[in-house]
Amino acid sequence: MGTNAKAMMETLGRQAREASVGMRMADTRCKNDALRRAAAVLRRERAEILAANEMDVRAGRDQGLDAALLDRLLLNDDRIEAMAEGLEQIAALPDPVGEIEHLTSRPSGIQVGRMRVPLGVIGMIYESRPNVTADAAGLCLKSGNAVILRGGSEAIHSNRVIAGCMRRAVLEAGLPQDAVQLVDSTDRALVGELIRAEDYVDVIIPRGGRGLIERIAAEARVPVIKHLDGVCHVYVDAAADLDMALNIAVNAKTQRPGVCNAMETLLVHADVAAAFLPRVVAALIERGVEVRGCERTRKLAEGVVPATDADWDAEYLALILAVKVVDSLEAAMAHIARHGSGHTESIVTEDYAAGQTFLREVDSSSVMWNASTRFADGYEYGLGAEIGISTNRLHVRGPVGLEGLTTQKWLVLGRGEVRE
Amino acid sequence: MGTNAKAMMETLGRQAREASVGMRMADTRCKNDALRRAAAVLRRERAEILAANEMDVRAGRDQGLDAALLDRLLLNDDRIEAMAEGLEQIAALPDPVGEIEHLTSRPSGIQVGRMRVPLGVIGMIYESRPNVTADAAGLCLKSGNAVILRGGSEAIHSNRVIAGCMRRAVLEAGLPQDAVQLVDSTDRALVGELIRAEDYVDVIIPRGGRGLIERIAAEARVPVIKHLDGVCHVYVDAAADLDMALNIAVNAKTQRPGVCNAMETLLVHADVAAAFLPRVVAALIERGVEVRGCERTRKLAEGVVPATDADWDAEYLALILAVKVVDSLEAAMAHIARHGSGHTESIVTEDYAAGQTFLREVDSSSVMWNASTRFADGYEYGLGAEIGISTNRLHVRGPVGLEGLTTQKWLVLGRGEVRE
Repeated sequence: MGTNAKAMMETLGRQAREASVGMRMADTRCKNDALRRAAAVLRRERAEILAANEMDVRAGRDQGLDAALLDRLLLNDDRIEAMAEGLEQIAALPDPVGEIEHLTSRPSGIQVGRMRVPLGVIGMIYESRPNVTADAAGLCLKSGNAVILRGGSEAIHSNRVIAGCMRRAVLEAGLPQDAVQLVDSTDRALVGELIRAEDYVDVIIPRGGRGLIERIAAEARVPVIKHLDGVCHVYVDAAADLDMALNIAVNAKTQRPGVCNAMETLLVHADVAAAFLPRVVAALIERGVEVRGCERTRKLAEGVVPATDADWDAEYLALILAVKVVDSLEAAMAHIARHGSGHTESIVTEDYAAGQTFLREVDSSSVMWNASTRFADGYEYGLGAEIGISTNRLHVRGPVGLEGLTTQKWLVLGRGEVRE
Repeated sequence: MGTNAKAMMETLGRQAREASVGMRMADTRCKNDALRRAAAVLRRERAEILAANEMDVRAGRDQGLDAALLDRLLLNDDRIEAMAEGLEQIAALPDPVGEIEHLTSRPSGIQVGRMRVPLGVIGMIYESRPNVTADAAGLCLKSGNAVILRGGSEAIHSNRVIAGCMRRAVLEAGLPQDAVQLVDSTDRALVGELIRAEDYVDVIIPRGGRGLIERIAAEARVPVIKHLDGVCHVYVDAAADLDMALNIAVNAKTQRPGVCNAMETLLVHADVAAAFLPRVVAALIERGVEVRGCERTRKLAEGVVPATDADWDAEYLALILAVKVVDSLEAAMAHIARHGSGHTESIVTEDYAAGQTFLREVDSSSVMWNASTRFADGYEYGLGAEIGISTNRLHVRGPVGLEGLTTQKWLVLGRGEVRE
């Protein structure tokens, strides 16, 4: 490419930092105006977006991208409309910026509280799906941040046009245009520069395959909000309502198997294994699931393939499920602690003590009681939208919405108080 | 030393991780019991602590440590009593762990909320003051974390005895003893291992000189909660009550000049410079402050040394102050944006619009209106205690108390709901 990656990223970074000052002070009406205008521009420029996307899809086909990747890359009228509607939905969400919490009076006479403010500059690194360009830019705008977008090289033409639409809308709304910038190059060195640009970028949010995210986490100097895996568990307790457990297990595995909050391992208490396993295994197999079970599972249910050690750590993202019989709640929790990825786990039980223990002791970003793991999602949690999922322990954990893109500063209101 | 640093840190790390599981589930009564027992053990072992401390002080004197360092290193009856009382105060604070926030019902039927949980394992790296051993261990225990303490080599004997007291109390209270571990070696390689022990340590909190913290931040793989500088500003607006401004400026500079929330630069609006500067400069000089001013300051007040460019970025931590006349609120905020360290800034004004603008637009961990910067402190903010100050943007900003040592997980309570 001949790009001078470092210089290019410095320019983008400086522009983003400057724009972030304007964004920090932008009022809600203005940010919502930008989002609604962006929706309108996307609809207006549909033909241009589709033409650019066709170039990407054609190039992808020539390069031999597989069908799943090509589908992710593809835009059509419905998907463009969904992007536009997504931006309008973000406009309709409450603005987290400026909220003042817990303003209390202290013995010294001062009032102390916390005000929610934007993080600053977000670096967004993602693969294939061009709609992320609009979604991520929208969430960053609404939360008062500037964003540097680095999409996959296979979507460069689509991303260029979509980012251009966003920038036009930002400018029309009177906000700094560089609040949305696309890294308009497929030079991989730019990713390396972006994740080390500590002076310009406050947080990196990667979305994509495990390989991409591991590489970013290993090399980044900027903090990374991320999750690697979703090895999610459902534990069917001795005191489970077995109809409910069946329903939840089938939903958690099959409703959308390719996503990170789908169940990958089912743990069943020995006391209900004989009653439950034949039913659930049959129901899963009927829906095309390959069931890989421990010895005890295989004795109780038909059609179960033997599980190997690797199965307990596997994130299948497919119609495959590992099943294990456990002797107690404690054994279930120990299995989760050892093999889970800290994403989402659910217990099915009517026993109050068992449910409470599971909720308290399981150390995952989402812990559920009598609900499908599929609910671990920004929309379902009421965040309005999500820019990603975090299994980090610091700052934000679980689905990341607008609030996760902000931080708080302390406010002190005095009347001349001094420290004694 | 011949220490195998990597193996030693792995042992400490594994033990801490295991202890953190027990700590995560410890109930409040048990943690408070450990803290009160620790206070009792410290009082009981006073003679042993003083004897160990004498060894450190004598060795420090032999090595030619300066008077300030020796004073920080020194323990006496009062300081040991203060440590014990500090632990009792932590026992009296509310336990942040287990708090459930914002449990709301979603259209799907599930209830969603967030539960506060410990971070896990804290790595605490600090210099000279042996009381940090008790303070940090106490805060980590109360917040349900395990801690690995790495104090300065000059305080190794004191730290060893104090950590031993804490461990005894933890064991007596029925908690896992390895919730408190001291790196009992002065091998510097261990710091390097600690800050890269991603599998065992969830966050590093360094306290000490800028050099130490910069080195840690540059080399750490584990997230670091830190601040580098406190270049704090007071801006005296055109609409300031000048008596109040005088009081605040004198307090912010002189009440305790050696700490990070002391004022280092005073900005004065040109409209009040002639009325204010002679008074404030005289009052400061009377209290032994060296005043370094811009040209305009020097024309208006007697005894002002010329400021150089370096003064606007200086953290003096001493009775020295940089003073600058600015033409507007915007110019003051621009100066702060350029030269501030994001720690604490205060505006003095009776003008509502100016105060509001300053509060909203100044991007520091604490922003104040008509109050001394010296209030930026965990006790003054009502946190009960602080383990450090953060100028990070992520996770925790400003004084870090018990809440900053915790994170939140999502809870989902259902009655068999599945995703449609």
